[in-house]
Amino acid sequence: MDKEHILLDHGSGGRLTHNLINDLFFKYFDNEIIRKQTDSAFLKLESGNVAFTTDSYVVKPIFFPGGDIGKLAVSGTVNDIAVTGADPQYLSCGFIIEEGLPFADLEKIIKSMAKEAGRCNVQIVAGDTKVVERGACDKLFINTSGIGVVNKRYKDISCGENICIGDKIIVNGFIADHGIAILGARNELDFKAEIRSDTIGLNLLIKDLLGDTLKIRFMRDPTRGGVATVLCELARNREFGILLDEESLPVRESVKGVCELLGFDPLYVANEGKVIFVVAREDAGEVLRRLQENVLGRKSRIIGEIVHTNPGSVVLQTSVGGKRLVEMLTGAQLPRIC
Amino acid sequence: MDKEHILLDHGSGGRLTHNLINDLFFKYFDNEIIRKQTDSAFLKLESGNVAFTTDSYVVKPIFFPGGDIGKLAVSGTVNDIAVTGADPQYLSCGFIIEEGLPFADLEKIIKSMAKEAGRCNVQIVAGDTKVVERGACDKLFINTSGIGVVNKRYKDISCGENICIGDKIIVNGFIADHGIAILGARNELDFKAEIRSDTIGLNLLIKDLLGDTLKIRFMRDPTRGGVATVLCELARNREFGILLDEESLPVRESVKGVCELLGFDPLYVANEGKVIFVVAREDAGEVLRRLQENVLGRKSRIIGEIVHTNPGSVVLQTSVGGKRLVEMLTGAQLPRIC
Repeated sequence: MDKEHILLDHGSGGRLTHNLINDLFFKYFDNEIIRKQTDSAFLKLESGNVAFTTDSYVVKPIFFPGGDIGKLAVSGTVNDIAVTGADPQYLSCGFIIEEGLPFADLEKIIKSMAKEAGRCNVQIVAGDTKVVERGACDKLFINTSGIGVVNKRYKDISCGENICIGDKIIVNGFIADHGIAILGARNELDFKAEIRSDTIGLNLLIKDLLGDTLKIRFMRDPTRGGVATVLCELARNREFGILLDEESLPVRESVKGVCELLGFDPLYVANEGKVIFVVAREDAGEVLRRLQENVLGRKSRIIGEIVHTNPGSVVLQTSVGGKRLVEMLTGAQLPRIC
Repeated sequence: MDKEHILLDHGSGGRLTHNLINDLFFKYFDNEIIRKQTDSAFLKLESGNVAFTTDSYVVKPIFFPGGDIGKLAVSGTVNDIAVTGADPQYLSCGFIIEEGLPFADLEKIIKSMAKEAGRCNVQIVAGDTKVVERGACDKLFINTSGIGVVNKRYKDISCGENICIGDKIIVNGFIADHGIAILGARNELDFKAEIRSDTIGLNLLIKDLLGDTLKIRFMRDPTRGGVATVLCELARNREFGILLDEESLPVRESVKGVCELLGFDPLYVANEGKVIFVVAREDAGEVLRRLQENVLGRKSRIIGEIVHTNPGSVVLQTSVGGKRLVEMLTGAQLPRIC
């Protein structure tokens, strides 16, 4: 029997499934809850005010500079909870594996999930494995769902209802790294600069800020569709506009170069370790300072502000002195970047 | 633009994704929580004692007699929570869709999910959609994760620690329907009898029983691996054995016929609307009566009992008067039956 690759029988619910679960999942995700192996995991949360989210990850390729599908599946779902102001605590993971995937690849990915979960201080407590025949999926898809405890003070932060004219827009570092890293990893395009994905869980960075009395009025992670999409969605149908300063946008030279070459706008390219904050003007300096003290926020910048002009729209003050409207992307973006 | 099929752009996070979410998901899953469209859904549960589970569904074909992948994805996850004694309340759903899937198929499946969720009295509150290129998955995979509230009285029911010699084993109806229905729907085998899958959520049936003082000592749903696998796992390393009575096993004549023809043992074939109960001898009659009053339990039967002989094993008393050991399945089962 081939012992180096995943077989259909690893998903049959029989002995090979048990071995797979014991040898990989329980080994690396080990904790008191998952060890019970019941059909549903029992959790004790501080309260019944629960944040709940789900995401399926189909990124291609499954390994890329700066991460892999496992690290992405953990950090992406952690971030979806964290940006709603809640505290992520537990994750489930559902694997859909293509027959023939090397065991070594799966092990590497599971180790990477365990490492990122540990770093984010969340536990993986429930799982499921399906194996489909060759050609019925592309190597590996992972779904993670997450549970967090709602922070009552910030429970409306996703709506941004308290945003005021003059509030500052902050991002915690270089944008567009993830999308360009994935593109580079596909080897379809011949660019030499190795650009690393920014994939990382931001819950501890965010928790540190929320613990204080700083007036943070909105948060969201600019993943698919990038910074532009988050800001366009935020401004839509509002009585304020957003003015972005192109000069202030943190974009690596290497990323800028690839974007220019290929005709991408970094504002629309996906990030997996970034969060956009809208912060009261008087607290913006302190938030920036606090972010920059954290390894995940060293390159934080104020990139724009909430304005009374152009309500409902996002306008970019370009580096050559002009202004241009930033619109919702309608056409094709890069498929399978997350 | 092709308006009748799913395009890659429906998963891009841009305008087409928004349309898809509004036109299908919000339309059919409509509830106050999902309408907020935040990165994580906020739930109010009675307590912080939460049951959490996940399952990915890759069943082939996606439509089959008695159900479809959507109904299965809802009822399967509802059942995983219900058999641990908890009360399922909320589901997430993650769709991985192959480019080119007809819109009409997706809509039919989403309607079917909404209907089953309504029947089970659970809400679908969080979702995610990914679209992969043609050939990168097989039509549609769905992950559902579920949250329930733990019933303290039954919190250890999955362990079966209180099982006693003399306890009766009950199943709520015909076994092996699901696996055989899927096989029939694949058209790979030429059998004429239309056998319908038993796919259905059992939480209300179970809740009705648990509300009482009946001594129910163990529950599990016999899905992949069938009744045999559940009972073998239950008996393993215990000081009791299980004696099954072949005559009492409820198997439809049509299913029996197909199994005989193809060399399947109904004890190992998957079910998606069945639950195995272990019940104190003195309450077995009342449990049976209560089950038979419910449309999902009309054909309930006592199929065996907990015995002091053959500890750690499951033995089948055959209809011809012999006895045979029921073993854990080691080899291949039907792939992609759920």
